[in-house]
Amino acid sequence: MLWTSSDFSRMPGRHRATLINCLSGFKSANLVGTRDTEGNTNLAMISSAFHLGADPALLGFISRPDLVSRHTLENIRDTSVYTLNHVHSGIIAAAHQTSARYPREQSEFDATGLTPTFSQYHDAPYVAECRVRLGLVLREMIDIVLNGTVLVIGEVVELHLPDNAVGEDGFVDLAALGTVSVSGLDSYSNPQPGQRYRYAKPGIKPGLLD
Amino acid sequence: MLWTSSDFSRMPGRHRATLINCLSGFKSANLVGTRDTEGNTNLAMISSAFHLGADPALLGFISRPDLVSRHTLENIRDTSVYTLNHVHSGIIAAAHQTSARYPREQSEFDATGLTPTFSQYHDAPYVAECRVRLGLVLREMIDIVLNGTVLVIGEVVELHLPDNAVGEDGFVDLAALGTVSVSGLDSYSNPQPGQRYRYAKPGIKPGLLD
Repeated sequence: MLWTSSDFSRMPGRHRATLINCLSGFKSANLVGTRDTEGNTNLAMISSAFHLGADPALLGFISRPDLVSRHTLENIRDTSVYTLNHVHSGIIAAAHQTSARYPREQSEFDATGLTPTFSQYHDAPYVAECRVRLGLVLREMIDIVLNGTVLVIGEVVELHLPDNAVGEDGFVDLAALGTVSVSGLDSYSNPQPGQRYRYAKPGIKPGLLD
Repeated sequence: MLWTSSDFSRMPGRHRATLINCLSGFKSANLVGTRDTEGNTNLAMISSAFHLGADPALLGFISRPDLVSRHTLENIRDTSVYTLNHVHSGIIAAAHQTSARYPREQSEFDATGLTPTFSQYHDAPYVAECRVRLGLVLREMIDIVLNGTVLVIGEVVELHLPDNAVGEDGFVDLAALGTVSVSGLDSYSNPQPGQRYRYAKPGIKPGLLD
């Protein structure tokens, strides 16, 4: 079946948002931890975090022009630090609940029962329940004028992982750690164990890594 | 266990790339289809496509400064159109193989056995084997000076889906369609069926959608 731009523009807003949010494929599921200048914590669910580069280690995410995202964006602008914490299968409900429109003075940590924790050299709150926790320093914010969103780019300066989570070649088995993926606005999935493929070269048949 | 920036910079390049590519979480798996000004087709695997907005329907992806990505980028710059096609579990090996460094004059369609197909109103090649196929028009390219990558932003102007793939509220069950996710550089996973959560509101317990 075929849809075109004019079909999209005729859809009710919520229906369109639900459909279009499915089109990129499966999305990452992260909680962004921040503090304001007075030290009050904030936690927000995002599904737009993406890999931008390995050297330096850069990740991007998209901040939307709504109130919930604005608190996070302002905190990052004011403090230059934030954390990203992988949502795993044991905390999906709490993670999803951080997307509710809590007033600025209420911390989503308190509201959802997730636990803030801090490391010695990084000033933004991590989520204690998460197994993969990244501490980032803001490197750049790029306004995307087309639709009023902001691309937030940060460098990973700290990485907390369970012992033995990193394989010999650097690979982290996220499925084994319970990290989930998101589809659309509200669907959370546990990926099955992955299959790794060899580095691809012209003229050589693709195959699984030994 | 804790890693810091200085640990990353001491790692061999391939090890660092493997590790850092895992940190954003699960990634989308798409094939980008393009043509050059002479009509020669090109196909490239990307794991950086992300949702940017629903109205208009905007997706972004990151183009890296390597040769493989450069062909795709130049084609999009020259023709202003491209397609994104969800990788599903039946074509993982062929999709991964498009990441090999084929010379410009060789089409990855021919090299991998995937089939180009065209729609009446869009000039970029779709992948016939894919069940979720998007036709996009270039809206903006943003240079990310920090690491020499380019953010390519396109608007979805065509959407091809199997009959009955869109639910009553607009949701597309990607797990049912076989769409896979990527972790790191080379690991492909089938997500298990997702669980959908209700729209979150302060003071109301999170729960599954009926």
